[in-house]
Amino acid sequence: MKKNEISILGSGLIGSLMSIYLKKRGLDVQVYEKRADNRKVEYKEEGRSINMALSDRGWKALDKAGLRDKVLPLTIPMYGRKIHDEHGKTTFIPYGKEGQAIYSISRGRFNQLLVEEAEKLGVEVHFDHRVDEIDLRTNEILVTNPEGIQEKIPSNVIIGADGAYSALRNAMLKQVRFDYKQEYISHGYKELTIPATEAGEFAMDPNALHIWPRGSFMLIALPNPDKSFTCTLFLPFDGERVCFENIRDEKDLVGMFQTYFDDAFQLMPDLVGEYFRNHTSALINIECYPWMLKNAILIGDSSHAMVPFYGQGMNCGFEDCYVLDGLIEKLGTNVWELIFAKFQKMRKPNTDAISQLAMENFEEMRNEVADPKFLIRKKIETKLHELYPKDWIPLYTMVTFSDIPYSEAYAQGKLQKKIMDKVMSNPLITQNWNKLDYEDIVNQMDKAKAF
Amino acid sequence: MKKNEISILGSGLIGSLMSIYLKKRGLDVQVYEKRADNRKVEYKEEGRSINMALSDRGWKALDKAGLRDKVLPLTIPMYGRKIHDEHGKTTFIPYGKEGQAIYSISRGRFNQLLVEEAEKLGVEVHFDHRVDEIDLRTNEILVTNPEGIQEKIPSNVIIGADGAYSALRNAMLKQVRFDYKQEYISHGYKELTIPATEAGEFAMDPNALHIWPRGSFMLIALPNPDKSFTCTLFLPFDGERVCFENIRDEKDLVGMFQTYFDDAFQLMPDLVGEYFRNHTSALINIECYPWMLKNAILIGDSSHAMVPFYGQGMNCGFEDCYVLDGLIEKLGTNVWELIFAKFQKMRKPNTDAISQLAMENFEEMRNEVADPKFLIRKKIETKLHELYPKDWIPLYTMVTFSDIPYSEAYAQGKLQKKIMDKVMSNPLITQNWNKLDYEDIVNQMDKAKAF
Repeated sequence: MKKNEISILGSGLIGSLMSIYLKKRGLDVQVYEKRADNRKVEYKEEGRSINMALSDRGWKALDKAGLRDKVLPLTIPMYGRKIHDEHGKTTFIPYGKEGQAIYSISRGRFNQLLVEEAEKLGVEVHFDHRVDEIDLRTNEILVTNPEGIQEKIPSNVIIGADGAYSALRNAMLKQVRFDYKQEYISHGYKELTIPATEAGEFAMDPNALHIWPRGSFMLIALPNPDKSFTCTLFLPFDGERVCFENIRDEKDLVGMFQTYFDDAFQLMPDLVGEYFRNHTSALINIECYPWMLKNAILIGDSSHAMVPFYGQGMNCGFEDCYVLDGLIEKLGTNVWELIFAKFQKMRKPNTDAISQLAMENFEEMRNEVADPKFLIRKKIETKLHELYPKDWIPLYTMVTFSDIPYSEAYAQGKLQKKIMDKVMSNPLITQNWNKLDYEDIVNQMDKAKAF
Repeated sequence: MKKNEISILGSGLIGSLMSIYLKKRGLDVQVYEKRADNRKVEYKEEGRSINMALSDRGWKALDKAGLRDKVLPLTIPMYGRKIHDEHGKTTFIPYGKEGQAIYSISRGRFNQLLVEEAEKLGVEVHFDHRVDEIDLRTNEILVTNPEGIQEKIPSNVIIGADGAYSALRNAMLKQVRFDYKQEYISHGYKELTIPATEAGEFAMDPNALHIWPRGSFMLIALPNPDKSFTCTLFLPFDGERVCFENIRDEKDLVGMFQTYFDDAFQLMPDLVGEYFRNHTSALINIECYPWMLKNAILIGDSSHAMVPFYGQGMNCGFEDCYVLDGLIEKLGTNVWELIFAKFQKMRKPNTDAISQLAMENFEEMRNEVADPKFLIRKKIETKLHELYPKDWIPLYTMVTFSDIPYSEAYAQGKLQKKIMDKVMSNPLITQNWNKLDYEDIVNQMDKAKAF
């Protein structure tokens, strides 16, 4: 049987972009995808979020493939968080400087575009092909095709872009000295909708990511091009207080929404139907190492699935593709083991850092953003960044609006936090935040970095 | 097809003891074991240590099954560590009070005895039966029998005592909200032998566990009834200094042994042959939760494989059996889900604690025991225990010579360590350790515990 030059497992966002990069390097690329072609059947995601937020790292990777102009029309810019309190009062907190935004995009439509672009270049995408097993000694993939027949596909290179439940990773798991961790958090999520108004308009400001932070739980909403919002409700699975387990019927549900999310509730005519129809999904964090074995490599969620609270899962996966393609550019297409070894070594500290930040940001989103002091903190950091644009870059900006390695952003963020905690401990901070000695604050950062 | 009342996966030490307990409660017990019956073929362990050290928790569990008298003749008591320095000079450090010992026993012979006892009671052990898959919805086990035919075996209860690479755990791994972690340490090990002398005697003191601590690596030796010692060499897999990767030929090997383990080297006539014949094994730590799904439960290494440096892997697995049997005794044989839920909740903090201690003890064994201050520290703690037998029980004693829950031992050990670190920071401690204010030290412990 003919040997594939490159086999990619998964035609999701990451697998599709990787296939485009590799095809552009003149390689033969075959992609195996267990789902049906979503351009032919009605698009349906199960247990995965519908909206993504594209930020700078994602755009940079799309630019390299020449795709920005095609993707931009599918997006809606969100310039900041809009925080909703219990009384429906909102506060807007910008994400960055004027004009800086993250971009809401629907996963389904975006994925279709990337698959189309890949196919235009000559990538072969095999839908309805389930990967059953991978033989890591021979680099053979065992797939079941749509007719139910198993085929054994020898491959020179296997790239696992097959997500949190990766078949390639499962094969690696059985290898000696493969470190692996999967961890579910105590919260799950459920998707709900705020539809367009009767007049066909957005029911809320479309250029913001809406958050209803309630301490141990929260609701968020992202805009869609059809003028609806996709809402995601994050609750603990079980416990004493508000949790999925304790919402047993319409009365429980409506009572909870009226108490905590009344302004959103007024905009959700089908809340009850959706709530009891839609699946409750779990949130997993996955870490593993190594990511490679000979000519096989894991990228994206397959090696580092993260919780969604920094909006970086997709962006980080795209950056994986960008970094990997950069190594291929430099080292050629004959030294895959060397490329993969360099890739995992460079990349692992960065994916560890963003996974950790994503975990920590959950606390910030559902709790801290509701604190008036959070706004002051953001204002001080914005001003520091204005005054000393190179010496103080807020953590969110480093992660979202730069390509500073995540690990470096993480380390600097920790130093900043220490200094800001001290600044914020001033009991009069709410009154005098504008009169602080900003030079002194930024000097503390320089001093801390020197160590 | 007839439904099994109890199916146990694995007829190793833990599976066999569990089968004995359950059979004694009048249950029908079927055990599936992928290996051949080691009473019929030559006994050969691959990648698992040959000697175990039985301590109090293990004996307590054997007592409950009435097996102490049958096991005792297979053991050799070890009353302490014998530390060998680079010049062959030895120092003896007792494990506990006079008469307290841990007991060296060969895994193979011990396992045979437990299987025989189980069969005598009527347990059916199916050797050469490989478990391929477990259907957790239906509680069916798919096994391949010695004729190569697959059978589907429905079971009321499934107990996974099938070790670090457990098939039951693999089935659970695919369930939502199953937390899992497997982690290999940087060191591997290789087994070697010090045979009996030409006169047919032990070549060293048989009543001690011998240790050659060398900082980043070590050699240990345990006595066998045939008057040989089984030695285990622990080295990093790779690195700059002494490691498995850097021992490429006879010259490297002999040079290393002559430099670091010369007294042992003189007693190892077949070192070179054994070293290059024997496999280098990796060391894994496994944690997961939950341990159960409906009527299926994990026990022993399948849920908490630990590194071997506290000698508690088997003892902890036996204690699992003891605790589980205690719950069955109390709650009956009709409420398996309740029993398993209580079991995992009680047991998990304890297995986490001993796994952590096992990891920490590696540092102690290969490094600290070589420090003369270690001996002083042990002497002070021994004296504290003599003077205040209830208020100061050394950590090693709590773990090895008591059945205090591991988690409690762990917590007390941490308090003791803090106090002892302070005591040992006295620059004159080597001279004046015998004149310390022991009452004051033990009072610090009481104070610390009050918090």
